[in-house]
Amino acid sequence: MSYNAIKLVKRPFGNITPDCFELCKIETPVLQNGEFLVQQTHMSLDPAMRGWMMEDKDSYMPRVELGEVMRSSGVGEIIESKNVDYPIGSRVMGMMGWTERYVGVSESLRVLPEGLPTEAALCVLAPGLAAYHGLVNVGKPKPEETLFISGAAGAVGSLVGQIAKAEGLTVIGSAGSDEKCRWLTEDLGFDAAINYKSEALQEPDALLTQVQIDCPSGIDLYFENTGGPIQHSVFDTMNAHGRIIVCGMIADYNSEIPSHGPNWLNIIKKRLSIQGFTMPDHFDQIPEMMVKISEYLMAGKIQYRSHELSGLESAIAGINLLFSGDNKGKLLVRL
Amino acid sequence: MSYNAIKLVKRPFGNITPDCFELCKIETPVLQNGEFLVQQTHMSLDPAMRGWMMEDKDSYMPRVELGEVMRSSGVGEIIESKNVDYPIGSRVMGMMGWTERYVGVSESLRVLPEGLPTEAALCVLAPGLAAYHGLVNVGKPKPEETLFISGAAGAVGSLVGQIAKAEGLTVIGSAGSDEKCRWLTEDLGFDAAINYKSEALQEPDALLTQVQIDCPSGIDLYFENTGGPIQHSVFDTMNAHGRIIVCGMIADYNSEIPSHGPNWLNIIKKRLSIQGFTMPDHFDQIPEMMVKISEYLMAGKIQYRSHELSGLESAIAGINLLFSGDNKGKLLVRL
Repeated sequence: MSYNAIKLVKRPFGNITPDCFELCKIETPVLQNGEFLVQQTHMSLDPAMRGWMMEDKDSYMPRVELGEVMRSSGVGEIIESKNVDYPIGSRVMGMMGWTERYVGVSESLRVLPEGLPTEAALCVLAPGLAAYHGLVNVGKPKPEETLFISGAAGAVGSLVGQIAKAEGLTVIGSAGSDEKCRWLTEDLGFDAAINYKSEALQEPDALLTQVQIDCPSGIDLYFENTGGPIQHSVFDTMNAHGRIIVCGMIADYNSEIPSHGPNWLNIIKKRLSIQGFTMPDHFDQIPEMMVKISEYLMAGKIQYRSHELSGLESAIAGINLLFSGDNKGKLLVRL
Repeated sequence: MSYNAIKLVKRPFGNITPDCFELCKIETPVLQNGEFLVQQTHMSLDPAMRGWMMEDKDSYMPRVELGEVMRSSGVGEIIESKNVDYPIGSRVMGMMGWTERYVGVSESLRVLPEGLPTEAALCVLAPGLAAYHGLVNVGKPKPEETLFISGAAGAVGSLVGQIAKAEGLTVIGSAGSDEKCRWLTEDLGFDAAINYKSEALQEPDALLTQVQIDCPSGIDLYFENTGGPIQHSVFDTMNAHGRIIVCGMIADYNSEIPSHGPNWLNIIKKRLSIQGFTMPDHFDQIPEMMVKISEYLMAGKIQYRSHELSGLESAIAGINLLFSGDNKGKLLVRL
């Protein structure tokens, strides 16, 4: 019996085009001792995938080789097992890739706790690691501080904002639609949200003025998910001794010529610190962070929404929703 | 009896022009109890002065007001005293300004140790604070690492490099003439030096290629004094987990439109940290750092050279040598 999977067959140049991928059929193998077979039910689509597709010696993770199944994390159910620790019926989470089935071994996947909805696992636990690590461990926020989040309605950004609100910070975010901004202020409790795409903010200096209006005490912490037009306005509004946490630059992942960063003079004048991070450096802290994130979730302090696509092949076009900003919530593919 | 001083009377726009200053005569006051009169012998000219001249609410130090004597540090000799701790004949150092004489009170100036040459005090102790704090306290260098210094032949840069060589690092610097580069490699022991103004390096990518050739193991630490063309080439050669210490941006102090910084994507991919600093935040650490710097000096590990101008009024045109890069060594005015 065979199952479907999607391989990377071409590296993107600019936007991710359908010819980067190829649907293929894979024969379900006979399990060896210690192995188990997972039927994947939900696949996560994430901005970082754009980097994994590239030929880039500087990347923090090995690239996906041409001809390999495209990499992604997901959740599935064990339908066959030769591993007593991974019995049939268990739900597991981990890097299975763009595939209907996956042969796991111990340690390659984690068993999900009973009672945790699959969407919560993919919408909160996984992006929650980057959100929690970046905000808390890198940013070291204090309750009286003002935090600005770009890409605030994204999977990571929305969690950063909610954790920060739970910790007492003033939180302002940017997003690319009025609907997303309403979700941030009305549902998630953000103090303000800026639709950087709105027509009124396209005039020179209008975006800077709006940031200054919404952050009357300046910005102490900047959680950067996007780059793009908002970056310079936020950078120019930083307070002395401000900290900038660089988690994502989604506005530039597809660009052939990366946009300019701000001049460094303010880094001296305001004694700013700017710190980039990626999660593979911090795998050892994951169990501890999982506990923290679960506490926020259980205490009802975390809301999430998922944007679900349907069927393996929907990933091919669907991944671009992340870069156009047309996804409303964490992008998932239901298989 | 009166003495000469120079006041700031206009803020510069772009380059510093002579009409920003005005020579004036000040009547020597009668000393009150606790005061002492200093005849200034050496005045220091420093890049930071450009910032002090500006109307800038974000600056880390109060600006010099129009009509005030221009700010600078210097060394002088006490010629009259009503303070037992500051007897006639003592040499003192501190912020006296562009003036032949200065009335001091306790704590406003520091008495120099006997036997320390005045040039060493101004060329090593003062810039040494920024060099030591930035390299050691901010950069946390390890002996096997590679350090790149922009503005390496400058007052701060040349000390950073020599401290780093004393600590076992591989040190590469950039400067604006072949003569400065020879000084760095032949006299100060730099492993390599790049004349970023040399004709061969004006072609696209030539500077980046040269940085890569001179830093075959990449760059772990970048001590930034200049901004300008070298910045992007060094930034693109940083190793994973590299640290960037931002001390100066002299290429941009006079520019009406600041140049672009690098895109932030590499900050994530390489998990870089970038930290700006200014010394007024660290005044409490000065005595401790003075001891450390003196140790390097006494151990013969620090060389310096001064570029001396003569007479108070020479400061007016002379300050621009710092921005054209035409000074050879620490810029001083001998009075």
